[in-house]
Amino acid sequence: MDRRGAIFGVGGGLALMAAGLPTQAAAGEVSSKVKDVVDRYERAWNASDMDAMSALYADDVHWVNIVGMHWQGKRDVDHAHRVYFDLMFKGVPMKLQEIESVVPLPAGGAVAVVRWSVGAFTTPVGQPVPPSRDRMSLVLIPDGDRLLIAHGANIQVDEMAQRSNPVPADQGR
Amino acid sequence: MDRRGAIFGVGGGLALMAAGLPTQAAAGEVSSKVKDVVDRYERAWNASDMDAMSALYADDVHWVNIVGMHWQGKRDVDHAHRVYFDLMFKGVPMKLQEIESVVPLPAGGAVAVVRWSVGAFTTPVGQPVPPSRDRMSLVLIPDGDRLLIAHGANIQVDEMAQRSNPVPADQGR
Repeated sequence: MDRRGAIFGVGGGLALMAAGLPTQAAAGEVSSKVKDVVDRYERAWNASDMDAMSALYADDVHWVNIVGMHWQGKRDVDHAHRVYFDLMFKGVPMKLQEIESVVPLPAGGAVAVVRWSVGAFTTPVGQPVPPSRDRMSLVLIPDGDRLLIAHGANIQVDEMAQRSNPVPADQGR
Repeated sequence: MDRRGAIFGVGGGLALMAAGLPTQAAAGEVSSKVKDVVDRYERAWNASDMDAMSALYADDVHWVNIVGMHWQGKRDVDHAHRVYFDLMFKGVPMKLQEIESVVPLPAGGAVAVVRWSVGAFTTPVGQPVPPSRDRMSLVLIPDGDRLLIAHGANIQVDEMAQRSNPVPADQGR
């Protein structure tokens, strides 16, 4: 909990209900489903288990990676991740630092921002990347009892820039 | 149109209906609402009109910018944009290149990926940034007849990296 209060923060339950969004009880359920996806993602990444990772995707998942490539549809998102795990990510640890936010979407989905620490790796053209942090936006849609990833956008944190965050409470986060 | 066919591509209308998502007719409507938001965003940016930009946000909008800052809630997202327009973006042109994808979300929302060209600017610490391209993921939720921005994640395109995109059709895009 930070200064924003509960994870569903701004506006609280009444605003959520007025917007046709879940009540706080239902929001808590969404939050635990998000955690489940994030935990599975972390395990799949660290096991380099692309079958397990792919099982988290919706059929029409889209993904924008840290260098701004945009992959469209499960086949391409899965293929690209397999290639990059073979080339550079196998054995590179990724650890959950924090699920920074979970904002419920209408009809039971959510959009979450997740902060990861990522071990050092070397790009396909031989450029070393030191240990870093990523902020990953995940758009999650309901599929029966669970959530699937409909969209991911992953941004590498520029540590220098964080010091000049214009939102004082976020400086250095 | 690219090799993926229609913008709502993979699976087509039947799969969308089975998932409780809009039919293609309704999807076309979503698509034009997305275009409306994107056009308004472009005009607001180029006019440095932060009131107009802020009017596009949902109350609980979250935003992750190109250096990985995560702003939570309309007050902070708006404040941060005002500060950065005063410091570096006022007069910097941003032009829509393409709405690369619109994937409908349950209950009438959508997630879109928009590619922009951005003029040169100078960071607050004096570092010049040459003209660049951004890929912006926008999560949009219905609000009456229009869509509001519930989430934005903006990634600067690494032009060198695009050449080695593991999805052949996407190389160099």
